[in-house]
Amino acid sequence: MAKRSASPPAAGKASREEAPPDHESPVECPATSQEAGSGMVGPCDEAYFEAYGQLDIHALMLRDHQRVSCYLAAIRLNKASIQNRLVLDVGAGSGILAMLAAKHGGAKHVYAVEAVPSMASLARRLVQRNGLETQVTVLEGRIEDVELPSQMDVIISEWMGFYLVHESMLESVLHARDRWLKPQGLLLPSSARILAAPVEAEELRAELEGYGDLHGLDLSFVGEERLASQMSEPQVETVEPRRLLGEPVLAFDLGDLHKLPAGSTREFKAKLTFTTWRPGRAAGIAFWFDVGFSGEGSSVTLKTDPGSPSTHWQQTVVYLGVFAAVDAGDILEAEVTMRQSESNPRQYDISIETQ
Amino acid sequence: MAKRSASPPAAGKASREEAPPDHESPVECPATSQEAGSGMVGPCDEAYFEAYGQLDIHALMLRDHQRVSCYLAAIRLNKASIQNRLVLDVGAGSGILAMLAAKHGGAKHVYAVEAVPSMASLARRLVQRNGLETQVTVLEGRIEDVELPSQMDVIISEWMGFYLVHESMLESVLHARDRWLKPQGLLLPSSARILAAPVEAEELRAELEGYGDLHGLDLSFVGEERLASQMSEPQVETVEPRRLLGEPVLAFDLGDLHKLPAGSTREFKAKLTFTTWRPGRAAGIAFWFDVGFSGEGSSVTLKTDPGSPSTHWQQTVVYLGVFAAVDAGDILEAEVTMRQSESNPRQYDISIETQ
Repeated sequence: MAKRSASPPAAGKASREEAPPDHESPVECPATSQEAGSGMVGPCDEAYFEAYGQLDIHALMLRDHQRVSCYLAAIRLNKASIQNRLVLDVGAGSGILAMLAAKHGGAKHVYAVEAVPSMASLARRLVQRNGLETQVTVLEGRIEDVELPSQMDVIISEWMGFYLVHESMLESVLHARDRWLKPQGLLLPSSARILAAPVEAEELRAELEGYGDLHGLDLSFVGEERLASQMSEPQVETVEPRRLLGEPVLAFDLGDLHKLPAGSTREFKAKLTFTTWRPGRAAGIAFWFDVGFSGEGSSVTLKTDPGSPSTHWQQTVVYLGVFAAVDAGDILEAEVTMRQSESNPRQYDISIETQ
Repeated sequence: MAKRSASPPAAGKASREEAPPDHESPVECPATSQEAGSGMVGPCDEAYFEAYGQLDIHALMLRDHQRVSCYLAAIRLNKASIQNRLVLDVGAGSGILAMLAAKHGGAKHVYAVEAVPSMASLARRLVQRNGLETQVTVLEGRIEDVELPSQMDVIISEWMGFYLVHESMLESVLHARDRWLKPQGLLLPSSARILAAPVEAEELRAELEGYGDLHGLDLSFVGEERLASQMSEPQVETVEPRRLLGEPVLAFDLGDLHKLPAGSTREFKAKLTFTTWRPGRAAGIAFWFDVGFSGEGSSVTLKTDPGSPSTHWQQTVVYLGVFAAVDAGDILEAEVTMRQSESNPRQYDISIETQ
């Protein structure tokens, strides 16, 4: 008998030592009603921002090599558009992107906007430690409430959550784009899409079957409850490529983020058609994302698919509650809806209907 | 940017797919004052029992092969003492030990006492599903409050927490022993001890050093905070044997549990002397435990050391906040105190002074 006790908000962890707990848990919205202000999301912001007050989450993101390196590559690729220009970092956290834009992009000035006081304070100390205080200003506040001295040439932001849209931070970036970005300004990243593929879960299946005869006892009820628990919310986990049952398909293409209208991320709906590669047992659909950083002549893509180097985003599996036998060349159809949760707009309700 | 939201109490997870979050978090005691009743622990019981209402924690314990197999082996080894006798299972959870004692031990009757209503209800359903209802009675309540029809021949209980004593459940078993076990009754497990060894943490050290120069930026402050966070509470993690810097030593021997006086688990204090095997950097002291099940002529030991097959208890590392260079044959001395936390008696404050 060994249990852990009530846990603080914890980041999804992708490194070898620190895999995540296997649930993504709902934010407990504070009961107090909160003025929506000019913001897009409103309720639950308090709990949301509080979670990002945990330094360990930022440490995890800082050592996500793929994440930081792609942003750095994008900054270098777009140096011509950043040098001696004004840059806005939306949701700056530790200030890493703002500092990289200043140091490697040669930005004239970066405004790093961060809503969490403890993080804004950390970012200020890091900016100072690195002697960048003439180039980087940390502004504490929500992007929707902050006043900037002028329009910006560049917006850089790392707004992506699990399965891309979890956290609903993209709306804040779109708001910033409409309010603060010059008409021909640069947006980093500049495109985004969600991909999907059917997956097996043979380890889970073996576990569940194991409860059917445990030293001569039938505990299959525990397996049924475990499966129900897995299905109750999207599971953030590292999906080994061998679990894929078919070619990944483009699920939702958000396209050019310059053109994506604010307010358009409330619901995504698509009918997906998968072709299976091999016989197996389809247990769920895995989702992940790519974001693109356009540049002068070439581009950078931050990929989070099962075959790419791991990131702290891992992949997200929506379990179907069955282990459906499929053959090579089968066609699987699924209607997928991702809809901002009414009770907590920082989260999405995902529903899948299969045929 | 990807974070998880407020998490429910989660079990430490040892399987390949489900490593634990890297913090052991303090129980949030409910603010309501609670009658101590006849119990040993009292405050925080509400949060403690609530955490065990999560089925996933029990599913994790059920698929901890080492855990279940050792108890089953102990039941078989002691069949002569169990068959046609009265058995008490303290903190029965899913009822697995009670059912094994009935099915494989041939117990006359097993009283399975479980404080968590949802688990007592699950245990009842599993007992029924397995046709054991004439042999096993599930009693809902704290062991300190429950009335049994007579004295018991055997007490079986899985009370061990991280680093053995976390959760303070042993006191409930000692209370049950004094109140309900016949003078010559059998106690399973019958002995317990805590072991310790100095360990390296080279991956952590590399991570912390990495913040010193991240793409030309000095973020060492993040590393300092990360180390402080690691030190702030015991870390439950899987310690690879290669991280051991010296021979494990016996830290605290609780000895024969028949003889351990109730109330004696409030504080453990010892001066430990380690001899290092090889050069390295001592980052902390790892703790784990053995429990012994005495039997007719032979015995069973459930071991949770780094070299033994993994269990959901893993090991617990107390970080020292430094990476101290040591040479082969060095003597390391440490004064270790584990003391029940005043604010939450389900937890222990661990302090280590090194020389």
